[in-house]
Amino acid sequence: MQLVCLDLEGVLLPEIWIAVARKTGLQELERTTRDEPDYDKLMHYRLDILKREGIGLREIHEVIGTMEPLPGAVEFTEWLESRVALIILSDTFVQFPKPLMAHLGYPTLFCHELIVGTNGTIDGYKLRLEDQKRKSVKAFKDLNFEVIAAGDSYNDLTMLQEADHGILFRPPEKMKAEYPDFPVATNHQELRENIERRLS
Amino acid sequence: MQLVCLDLEGVLLPEIWIAVARKTGLQELERTTRDEPDYDKLMHYRLDILKREGIGLREIHEVIGTMEPLPGAVEFTEWLESRVALIILSDTFVQFPKPLMAHLGYPTLFCHELIVGTNGTIDGYKLRLEDQKRKSVKAFKDLNFEVIAAGDSYNDLTMLQEADHGILFRPPEKMKAEYPDFPVATNHQELRENIERRLS
Repeated sequence: MQLVCLDLEGVLLPEIWIAVARKTGLQELERTTRDEPDYDKLMHYRLDILKREGIGLREIHEVIGTMEPLPGAVEFTEWLESRVALIILSDTFVQFPKPLMAHLGYPTLFCHELIVGTNGTIDGYKLRLEDQKRKSVKAFKDLNFEVIAAGDSYNDLTMLQEADHGILFRPPEKMKAEYPDFPVATNHQELRENIERRLS
Repeated sequence: MQLVCLDLEGVLLPEIWIAVARKTGLQELERTTRDEPDYDKLMHYRLDILKREGIGLREIHEVIGTMEPLPGAVEFTEWLESRVALIILSDTFVQFPKPLMAHLGYPTLFCHELIVGTNGTIDGYKLRLEDQKRKSVKAFKDLNFEVIAAGDSYNDLTMLQEADHGILFRPPEKMKAEYPDFPVATNHQELRENIERRLS
């Protein structure tokens, strides 16, 4: 039996932090895992900015409420779920993408948690598991699944390497050059064709 | 982070084999895991009957095409997926419930596979994994999920025991008496309340 693991932001949804950066005018928040592979470093950098600027969960939810999935992502997800078991492996936080997940029909999401104060301040974050993307793929393989995985950035790398078939979706040029063995899909149609070729 | 694992037939869908039994008039096929805890024994018994009667995948799909989810199951699944990550752990076969899964919005399904001949005969079955329900719950716990599980019959027992919280849904009287420690839900509203109490 086969299972598909997908990254969320950059594959199905826009980058939430970038949307927050644009809405708030805080350019510093445009830094993502595509720029900074050290996730803990990136998150502390982000949370420090939010604290300094007095931005809490309510303000972030306001931004997320105005967002939509990437063009083509809804149809792609519908097709994918009708063909094969799907699990989203994301380094987002369960509190973040909820209104956006509704557009996608709430696919199963493995992610992390924010530590939110009673007044809505984001006081920190709790990784459910270090390197969860790779470890989840490993667990699915141990449960006798053949795993197809697709992601767009450095935090997807160990997931793609652990999977039976890894696919890069619109990766940064640097990453594409560094990992030339992964097939590259530049839109959802190509990603669909790439996955379909591997489905039994 | 929390994850809900649900059995499929008897919880969200009617028992497919019972529907096949009624449609074909073959009462012998009404035997389920609720009656026969040894799954391999049960499956060989079923496949022998199908072979003897000349019933293939096409005939079974015809029956499944006429079925609907259990009353209330669609709304229950919608609510559940909007609240928490969901994975269906079933001893069905990936070829069986597809048209019925569409009604439920294709929740992620971990199950097994039938071995189907080119002429549509069901030649055997391939368990993806022995005791997959328990092992899957164990894997999710190792991935740092708190697992809530619900099922209706003997093949759910190890899953319910392995989970952090196990719930029986409309179990046979015998099973309810044998395992009095599990809370019992007799309809989807009660199951929803039982799960909701455990969600953080």
